[in-house]
Amino acid sequence: IEELTRDELEERLKGDPVIVLPVGATEAHGPHLPTGTDSLQPEHVADRLAERLNGLVAPPIRYGHHSSTKNMVGTLAIGSDTLRSLVGDVLISLARNGATRVVVLSGHAGSVHMAALKVACEEAVRGLDLKVMLLTDYELASELSEDLGIPAGDSHGGLVETSRVMSIAPHLVKGERKKGTFVDQEYMILPNPEVCFPQGFAGRADLATVETGDRLNRHVVDRLEGIVRRRMA
Amino acid sequence: IEELTRDELEERLKGDPVIVLPVGATEAHGPHLPTGTDSLQPEHVADRLAERLNGLVAPPIRYGHHSSTKNMVGTLAIGSDTLRSLVGDVLISLARNGATRVVVLSGHAGSVHMAALKVACEEAVRGLDLKVMLLTDYELASELSEDLGIPAGDSHGGLVETSRVMSIAPHLVKGERKKGTFVDQEYMILPNPEVCFPQGFAGRADLATVETGDRLNRHVVDRLEGIVRRRMA
Amino acid sequence: IEELTRDELEERLKGDPVIVLPVGATEAHGPHLPTGTDSLQPEHVADRLAERLNGLVAPPIRYGHHSSTKNMVGTLAIGSDTLRSLVGDVLISLARNGATRVVVLSGHAGSVHMAALKVACEEAVRGLDLKVMLLTDYELASELSEDLGIPAGDSHGGLVETSRVMSIAPHLVKGERKKGTFVDQEYMILPNPEVCFPQGFAGRADLATVETGDRLNRHVVDRLEGIVRRRMA
Amino acid sequence: IEELTRDELEERLKGDPVIVLPVGATEAHGPHLPTGTDSLQPEHVADRLAERLNGLVAPPIRYGHHSSTKNMVGTLAIGSDTLRSLVGDVLISLARNGATRVVVLSGHAGSVHMAALKVACEEAVRGLDLKVMLLTDYELASELSEDLGIPAGDSHGGLVETSRVMSIAPHLVKGERKKGTFVDQEYMILPNPEVCFPQGFAGRADLATVETGDRLNRHVVDRLEGIVRRRMA
Amino acid sequence: IEELTRDELEERLKGDPVIVLPVGATEAHGPHLPTGTDSLQPEHVADRLAERLNGLVAPPIRYGHHSSTKNMVGTLAIGSDTLRSLVGDVLISLARNGATRVVVLSGHAGSVHMAALKVACEEAVRGLDLKVMLLTDYELASELSEDLGIPAGDSHGGLVETSRVMSIAPHLVKGERKKGTFVDQEYMILPNPEVCFPQGFAGRADLATVETGDRLNRHVVDRLEGIVRRRMA
Amino acid sequence: IEELTRDELEERLKGDPVIVLPVGATEAHGPHLPTGTDSLQPEHVADRLAERLNGLVAPPIRYGHHSSTKNMVGTLAIGSDTLRSLVGDVLISLARNGATRVVVLSGHAGSVHMAALKVACEEAVRGLDLKVMLLTDYELASELSEDLGIPAGDSHGGLVETSRVMSIAPHLVKGERKKGTFVDQEYMILPNPEVCFPQGFAGRADLATVETGDRLNRHVVDRLEGIVRRRMA
Repeated sequence: IEELTRDELEERLKGDPVIVLPVGATEAHGPHLPTGTDSLQPEHVADRLAERLNGLVAPPIRYGHHSSTKNMVGTLAIGSDTLRSLVGDVLISLARNGATRVVVLSGHAGSVHMAALKVACEEAVRGLDLKVMLLTDYELASELSEDLGIPAGDSHGGLVETSRVMSIAPHLVKGERKKGTFVDQEYMILPNPEVCFPQGFAGRADLATVETGDRLNRHVVDRLEGIVRRRMA
Repeated sequence: IEELTRDELEERLKGDPVIVLPVGATEAHGPHLPTGTDSLQPEHVADRLAERLNGLVAPPIRYGHHSSTKNMVGTLAIGSDTLRSLVGDVLISLARNGATRVVVLSGHAGSVHMAALKVACEEAVRGLDLKVMLLTDYELASELSEDLGIPAGDSHGGLVETSRVMSIAPHLVKGERKKGTFVDQEYMILPNPEVCFPQGFAGRADLATVETGDRLNRHVVDRLEGIVRRRMA
Repeated sequence: IEELTRDELEERLKGDPVIVLPVGATEAHGPHLPTGTDSLQPEHVADRLAERLNGLVAPPIRYGHHSSTKNMVGTLAIGSDTLRSLVGDVLISLARNGATRVVVLSGHAGSVHMAALKVACEEAVRGLDLKVMLLTDYELASELSEDLGIPAGDSHGGLVETSRVMSIAPHLVKGERKKGTFVDQEYMILPNPEVCFPQGFAGRADLATVETGDRLNRHVVDRLEGIVRRRMA
Repeated sequence: IEELTRDELEERLKGDPVIVLPVGATEAHGPHLPTGTDSLQPEHVADRLAERLNGLVAPPIRYGHHSSTKNMVGTLAIGSDTLRSLVGDVLISLARNGATRVVVLSGHAGSVHMAALKVACEEAVRGLDLKVMLLTDYELASELSEDLGIPAGDSHGGLVETSRVMSIAPHLVKGERKKGTFVDQEYMILPNPEVCFPQGFAGRADLATVETGDRLNRHVVDRLEGIVRRRMA
Repeated sequence: IEELTRDELEERLKGDPVIVLPVGATEAHGPHLPTGTDSLQPEHVADRLAERLNGLVAPPIRYGHHSSTKNMVGTLAIGSDTLRSLVGDVLISLARNGATRVVVLSGHAGSVHMAALKVACEEAVRGLDLKVMLLTDYELASELSEDLGIPAGDSHGGLVETSRVMSIAPHLVKGERKKGTFVDQEYMILPNPEVCFPQGFAGRADLATVETGDRLNRHVVDRLEGIVRRRMA
Repeated sequence: IEELTRDELEERLKGDPVIVLPVGATEAHGPHLPTGTDSLQPEHVADRLAERLNGLVAPPIRYGHHSSTKNMVGTLAIGSDTLRSLVGDVLISLARNGATRVVVLSGHAGSVHMAALKVACEEAVRGLDLKVMLLTDYELASELSEDLGIPAGDSHGGLVETSRVMSIAPHLVKGERKKGTFVDQEYMILPNPEVCFPQGFAGRADLATVETGDRLNRHVVDRLEGIVRRRMA
């Protein structure tokens, strides 16, 4: 959308394109991944998806809500209410422009973050003439875990995410890739929740490969294309 | 910031770098300019400024508040409260990461938009150990108006903005560039404020040149570098 | 707490008891379960847990946030912001009274509902001298699914919940118990999300038994007692 | 409502029953009364009233707003905005379920508490197709003061309230019942407003009897039944 | 305060004067009284009180919250949250200027209006080094009702208020003064609450006299002076 | 409006008068001007304008939002959100009374203050059947700067404002009138923004005269009358 002029956008909207809104984040992802990891992934997917569906990509959001990493250097969190208002306002503006189908695609998958997006989307479909889909590409990527033999416990900054970023922006994966462990806090709400990530990430980043990343990214785009065609025809 | 890993960022922050936060917008800018015009300009300036000052660029914001163009296709506005919360939350997060000097650089210059940013910055300097500068590069660019012989009445999407985008991203300036007039509404608050821009922009876009844009952009970066060195040493 | 006088409460608080705050809900649970199903379960668990730990039970909350059943008769939903404020205010009051350990136990497990509770708890542990645990007893009950041979897809108002209520309040389970199916909407955010529950619930309510309910309830209390002893000693 | 299944509730709502919403509180009521005193009274009245009118009782609220006792152990106050949202959301949900007549019956009678309820009710009758009545049973009980020879100055936790709780839940009135004095602060807004209740209550709790409580409770139910029949026919 | 320069105010504040903040309203008061009735009374009292105590009068507020007259022409109501913020912000500013003793004197006495003021004052005394008194002069005036033989049922725009305005601003009491009746709605919250004032006011305005007004106004000032001297020495 | 009875107002509103809402402020204006300077000016203009247009003056607002002088004694600032709600609520009430044309005339011209008013007005014209004009009389007065030979840099409390107050309320301009300088802070957002006014005002107050003030005030009224006749006929 950002590269189009007003007139081009108006013309494109006549075709009722699917609009993809990539919701990224700036978050510490261990010593090997860039803080923009959660932005790179959905923006990559959004571009591919828009190509396949002749859709449009809305200007990306690069800030999200973070609970467990909120005290780490590298995390730039915004409040969950701020995130909800931001996405809600963008949906209203898209509808006003004439959009009728929007896919909100989040790179970050935290529960409070996703709930903020969900409430924004629920309000949009109640009040506007808009079809909205909400998901995190992380969930679609996880569908391949068994096939790829991803070890249990792989999550934030682990094998899946590292491989995907190696496929998207290999120059941004730096230094030695190690193993990260997740230390379960069993339902405690802590002022220092980062204790659950002693290395700042969880999983076998050391096993990540570009090939795995390629396959994961392709799977996400394939799956999402299928879902959108099924649900938003 | 987005391209750095957590460890790289931590290392860089030890040097107490100036952080530039580019606040863009998605807004109809006449038939010849892309909707991302107000994002392209401050992001361009932020990159140059960070290079010169060995600073960092925070993830850009691509949505702003719009009054006069809010009903036009191509404008994706967010509420002024949303914008204020967003920038305020980012400033809090930057301070928590250890930043002490932030330049909030806005591409859009609307009065309600700037007031939202101002309140966010005022709250930040009151509560946090942070030096904050707030400005729109549009105001710095205007300082050259007389030297360049910019006709009076040049504003939204006019000669200054068109030239600057021609210098930054020439392929995004499309179609015939015309003249746009501003029709003053004399203090009326209207439900349809777009009547003040019958062509969707105001000024002599037809006279815009890459050379003028180069000079304007260089002036903005030079001026801003000087101010930051003077005020945030 | 409600049955104690001010002096009795003051005396009890000297022993630094664990306080359990049961967060229930009023929600349509199919044709066979009472709307108070999500209140009955955590209040039952809270009473048992308080007995075992010599703790106290705070006055129950009987309203929650609901997404998928929000349009059904029988659901009395409150906004997620209201829920967050309510639980947040109660936590502040408990801390002011001198409590230091609180278990927030929710009968309802919806993602937006749980996120609202999480934010309230996060704010409480940040600002107050309070240890807080947050969970839904539904998650603990699900740990037995494999052992008990619960068919996949059992969820809202299904075999697990029906059995538990048959154990707690058998007279409130009425009429014929049927099978309920869950119809996946694949990430669509719908204005009529109740289409995912054509029968108003999902699972084999027809297979529910008091014995299964007894075992589930005992398991939840045992597990929770263990976690609290481990984490809040 | 909580004991009904979805189908039973739907059936009952066809008869357009009066719904009573008991709004209780958890508040220090001197050394002799339970903290749930303000919940016990309206819930008792609500049950009787629903019987007489073939109405329904909505799930009770057990938290309110408190000014003068807010610093006492035994008081679990919520903010007045929280209370307003809570009751407002419940009224919206009741209307969505098909209710048309609601009596909001509060056990606590503080001025800010009642104002919060009033605003919630005003918004409900403005926006919804709902008849709403709002009152505190304390005010109805006070009508008997002269007949019963209640000494002037009887208020929070005094002869009236103690008698009523002795009638409703005699086992919860404990220890020696004394005299409590009210120390007027003459319009001062104090950070420690509890100085107005040196004994934690005001009135001749020592003179309270079950018989007086029976008569007060009966009077409240009789009066309220009359008003509802007159106003909500 | 408004007539003083910055330097004069600074000098006066060294003497730690009592500050009176008159909170008026613009409200229909029947056919005979001006809409500014509730502003005239507290501003009159504030001036007299400041003279006697060598205090200062803060700039008056002329808008309040109204329930029963909100639909009448002549009432300019603001929301109760707006009123609370307004008075709260003014109290914060007064404290920042160095004031330590403030009397908030309201001309309007509606329950939601007074609750909004009370919450604002409670927050001020909790967070600021400020003594605050809150009252409505209407309540003090009512103390004379028996002595003056004011008929029962005199209230909004009745004998008391009419007499007081005749004493303060006789030229603003116009037309024939009649009798107004109050029609009790017995706890119903109505969308059209003005039905309780069929004539727009309640009481024997026809019996009002300047002499009665003089006496009422003098009584209010005398009483308030006494209370302030006793409580805010 | 405040001096009219309900019936008189109703009668006047039948003629569809222009309503002027004067928005003043209480702010330090240097050692020579009263804190009510920004109230005196728009109230003076409002009275003249209403006379000429047979319009009405709404009850004045005497508090505004202040950035640069917020820490000075003499400034009683309210939050920008409070100001927005206040003016927004008043506009809603005016529309409910039957007004269709409102001029919001502000004496203070701060950017955040004006933005708050602008948002309130924008919301009003979107939701209500209301024509709204918003301006500060300071801007109209500045049009004469060249003609009157006002030195550059004259602003807060300077030659223009001092002259105008000398014309409106000469007895309130006190002490020696000096020169005040403005010290530019070049886009820095400071916790102590008052450093830009070392003398508390900026401009040649020593050159102010009653004659200049008369001319300025007359110009403002003339200009505003013209604009209103042109735009709100």
